[in-house]
Amino acid sequence: MYTLYGMPDSGNCYKPRLAAEQLGIACRWVEVRDTRSPEFLAKNPNGKVPLLELGDGGFLPESNAILWYLAEGTALAPAGRLGRAHALQWMFFEQYSHEPYVAVARSIVRHTPPDSPRRAELPRLRERGRQALGVMERHLAREPYFVDGVYSIADIALFAYTHCAEDGGIELAPYPAVRAWLECVRAQPRFVPMQ
Amino acid sequence: MYTLYGMPDSGNCYKPRLAAEQLGIACRWVEVRDTRSPEFLAKNPNGKVPLLELGDGGFLPESNAILWYLAEGTALAPAGRLGRAHALQWMFFEQYSHEPYVAVARSIVRHTPPDSPRRAELPRLRERGRQALGVMERHLAREPYFVDGVYSIADIALFAYTHCAEDGGIELAPYPAVRAWLECVRAQPRFVPMQ
Repeated sequence: MYTLYGMPDSGNCYKPRLAAEQLGIACRWVEVRDTRSPEFLAKNPNGKVPLLELGDGGFLPESNAILWYLAEGTALAPAGRLGRAHALQWMFFEQYSHEPYVAVARSIVRHTPPDSPRRAELPRLRERGRQALGVMERHLAREPYFVDGVYSIADIALFAYTHCAEDGGIELAPYPAVRAWLECVRAQPRFVPMQ
Repeated sequence: MYTLYGMPDSGNCYKPRLAAEQLGIACRWVEVRDTRSPEFLAKNPNGKVPLLELGDGGFLPESNAILWYLAEGTALAPAGRLGRAHALQWMFFEQYSHEPYVAVARSIVRHTPPDSPRRAELPRLRERGRQALGVMERHLAREPYFVDGVYSIADIALFAYTHCAEDGGIELAPYPAVRAWLECVRAQPRFVPMQ
């Protein structure tokens, strides 16, 4: 039995929760309130959720590494070498070019007061978030999913913060292919929403 | 024959160059000066290097996805499922918690004039870079390499910007285990320096 440490409002934590549900993998959920507590840092020295506790007492952090671990050898992971590389391409794109803008804009809007100095970052974050959505739109205008034409962990990784991008003030109206893809993800068997 | 598009001063571009050298994979190098040119954006819509051109005309961006692709099935990739997940854990750590601080501090120091307003970011970037080095130090104080006790693509990914962190004003003196590990990487067969 796995244990997943996370926060309910986090798209990164939603990723392994959705994958586990769709793969029928039993996973106990433990809500973490302080990722910098000595108790949690002993489990993950990088102080971040999600964190997967394996049955043997070991730990695995990083949302997309957890996705990879849970999905390896299943229908949610590409079967070929090039497909696996393309899945990782989109998962690294998500963590480097998408999440730091789309998720951070959402976090600032939801969790800082209206007069927070952090709100000065929003125009730049939204501009970079729109660039990421533009890259996704260009791909999804030609392909139904991110890798090999089928739903995979690359879609789960990118769905997590794309579906709630408007929470951070990044409108999805200019991205029709992205919106159509979001509906295809929501229509997958055993789909569960973030909250 | 692969073609690798890159910039000579980029640690991200150095990663696949080092891996290809160590794996004996022939790779033509093409220097890119403008990653936002229409010609380059047609190859990688995300406008970033490195970019691997496969023999069949396809393209693979994202340094760590290229590392994975080149190394799969070789001694540079962990053989077990948990080892693969831990390699990805460190590679996602590198792109999310390390590179955006260690590499960006270096880039600002090397490529902006002394009065650039971007230099105001340096204290925060260095602080976050030191946090990442602290996480690495804690691991390397117990283990010689990042995964399964042996040299792998996870080490290549983290070596790329750690070995030149001092260029960005992040001193390595407080991290003896990191410095010992850098020497172990430099001592690997077929090692080549960044420049």
